[in-house]
Amino acid sequence: MIVGIIGGGQLARMLALAGHPLGVRCLFLDPAPDACARSVGTLLIGHYDNPRFLDRIATEADVVTYEFENVPASSLKYLAPRIAVRPGVEAIEVARDRWHEKQLFAELGIPTPPFAAVDTFEDLEAAVATMGLPAVLKTRTLGYDGKGQRVLRAASDLAAAFALLSGVPLILEGWVPFVREVSVIAVRGLQGETRFYPLSENIHQGGVLVQSMSRDRDPVTAMAQDYAQRLLGRLHYVGVLALELFQVGDQLLANEMAPRVHNSGHWTIEGAQTSQFENHMRAILGLPLGSTEALAHTAMVNFVGHLPDPSKVLSVPGTHLHVYDKNPRPGRKLGHATVRADDADSLSQALGQLRSLSHC
Amino acid sequence: MIVGIIGGGQLARMLALAGHPLGVRCLFLDPAPDACARSVGTLLIGHYDNPRFLDRIATEADVVTYEFENVPASSLKYLAPRIAVRPGVEAIEVARDRWHEKQLFAELGIPTPPFAAVDTFEDLEAAVATMGLPAVLKTRTLGYDGKGQRVLRAASDLAAAFALLSGVPLILEGWVPFVREVSVIAVRGLQGETRFYPLSENIHQGGVLVQSMSRDRDPVTAMAQDYAQRLLGRLHYVGVLALELFQVGDQLLANEMAPRVHNSGHWTIEGAQTSQFENHMRAILGLPLGSTEALAHTAMVNFVGHLPDPSKVLSVPGTHLHVYDKNPRPGRKLGHATVRADDADSLSQALGQLRSLSHC
Repeated sequence: MIVGIIGGGQLARMLALAGHPLGVRCLFLDPAPDACARSVGTLLIGHYDNPRFLDRIATEADVVTYEFENVPASSLKYLAPRIAVRPGVEAIEVARDRWHEKQLFAELGIPTPPFAAVDTFEDLEAAVATMGLPAVLKTRTLGYDGKGQRVLRAASDLAAAFALLSGVPLILEGWVPFVREVSVIAVRGLQGETRFYPLSENIHQGGVLVQSMSRDRDPVTAMAQDYAQRLLGRLHYVGVLALELFQVGDQLLANEMAPRVHNSGHWTIEGAQTSQFENHMRAILGLPLGSTEALAHTAMVNFVGHLPDPSKVLSVPGTHLHVYDKNPRPGRKLGHATVRADDADSLSQALGQLRSLSHC
Repeated sequence: MIVGIIGGGQLARMLALAGHPLGVRCLFLDPAPDACARSVGTLLIGHYDNPRFLDRIATEADVVTYEFENVPASSLKYLAPRIAVRPGVEAIEVARDRWHEKQLFAELGIPTPPFAAVDTFEDLEAAVATMGLPAVLKTRTLGYDGKGQRVLRAASDLAAAFALLSGVPLILEGWVPFVREVSVIAVRGLQGETRFYPLSENIHQGGVLVQSMSRDRDPVTAMAQDYAQRLLGRLHYVGVLALELFQVGDQLLANEMAPRVHNSGHWTIEGAQTSQFENHMRAILGLPLGSTEALAHTAMVNFVGHLPDPSKVLSVPGTHLHVYDKNPRPGRKLGHATVRADDADSLSQALGQLRSLSHC
């Protein structure tokens, strides 16, 4: 079996590594000649809308998926009549535009922070007048890891932020006093079977995820799963979907969804009965899903900008290292470590060691 | 980091899959253009003693290992002055010759079935007179999976078996009334740190392994580990070593050693804290070893000659599939399934399902 993957970054790489044992080879499409998936499959070096390579994928692959939501929907629409695209085109169309995404949440009764579309400076002023400050001005599309957004704290911030970001459609999102950020990773099979991983509790720094911890039987689990289930059903979804949520008091507000495997689910590689990567592959291939139960107390620490000495990482008990074969660059995700422990205290101790290694 | 691997079969393939997350790429040397590791690294298509390719490995790789014991020792000797070869040349020289291997066992006080070198028909008659029948006549080198051997049950079997196998050095091994076959998978790091996986209890059919089950806290564990430890120390071993043993009464008799990752350790991929493949890579790269503890009740079933429907395999609870991307052929190992369960009864039930799938 051959799976076409739009994108050749670390998510594609880890999908391919999960695919090989299932007898699956991957064909990646990415404009970067050094895309880090290149060593685990066949890399087609071209833009995401390159018709020659899209044709090749449609001809050679059995199914197509994508590793990020900024794939042009037009590419998926081009492919869809000729080859199964999983998850579908609609998931991309919704997820690549923060405003469409929030509209869908609202339509499905999934609470969100306040939000408003901003096309003009007058829109921005009106939205700020309604929802107050602080608030976050974001580009509707193409943002990730805190890129393409500015926090507005005072009325005097509006003009500079608008000048910096405008020219593309924007969205203003109300700032919410969240107690923590969580995400739910869900997977839906071709026949509609749905499974959820234990909730991930996430820590971001500068807009970039630095740590996720699995939270078995967390009190807000049922609420998070209910919201994810509404999305899966509405989108006739096939594959892994991540829904990021803010917890405010005992309520959850949806921040964004990712129609793909997700950084906050990397702990599942060693921490769950079946990793999110294997389950995404199983889902899009129409195979039975694997158990999403956690194996232990488990967490993940990202290595951003630099990779610590592997010997030091692997000296931390219960740790596995995952490097992405990418050239170091400030702010770039270069790898992560997963850690598995018998109890919460041991996990916390290991996490402390890994977090301190991630800084030096 | 680049690891050179002599051999490009399924063991090399699984080593490479364990290496990618550690940032390791593999360079395989194998004469078969369709060697199944080809899709997870760079395959050099050439004989194991091809000097041009050996030179390339010495130049490009950081360390060399091998996936089977029938590599010519001359190739490793050629490489050894220029690049670290782990495990070393001596391990191959011992393991590729059943007589040398048994001699080493004897030297280290590791009990074995009776054995005798057989070069002539007179040697065979003399050995049979001493140890009786049944006995097994084997080629000293190049045998695997029951190939290159004949069971002698009556005096009338001698001539035909000798005619079939002679022309190369032979060994006669006394048949022992074993109650079961077990193996111990050990790993020794570059600094001499040693760890042992829980014992594997193995079932062979027609000389081919069909099932291994992990046996946590098995009564003969200490004895098996003691024997393996003697070999590791004597050979200044680095990497994973497997020692296959017959249990006769409450004693263990060494059958053979494999200086490499081993089929009876495949359950460790999902069944142990750290797989044998990852630990072999960690050891030869001088990285800290990972825990060898089992995660659950766990076992492995081989798929020999044909691969069952993946949907059926993955419907068995707790199961993961590992296919080798090899063309089917009778008697050929094409893949395996690992299974993990909370208790012995669930494991046994899952194993029953997998064994029946392996037959149809």
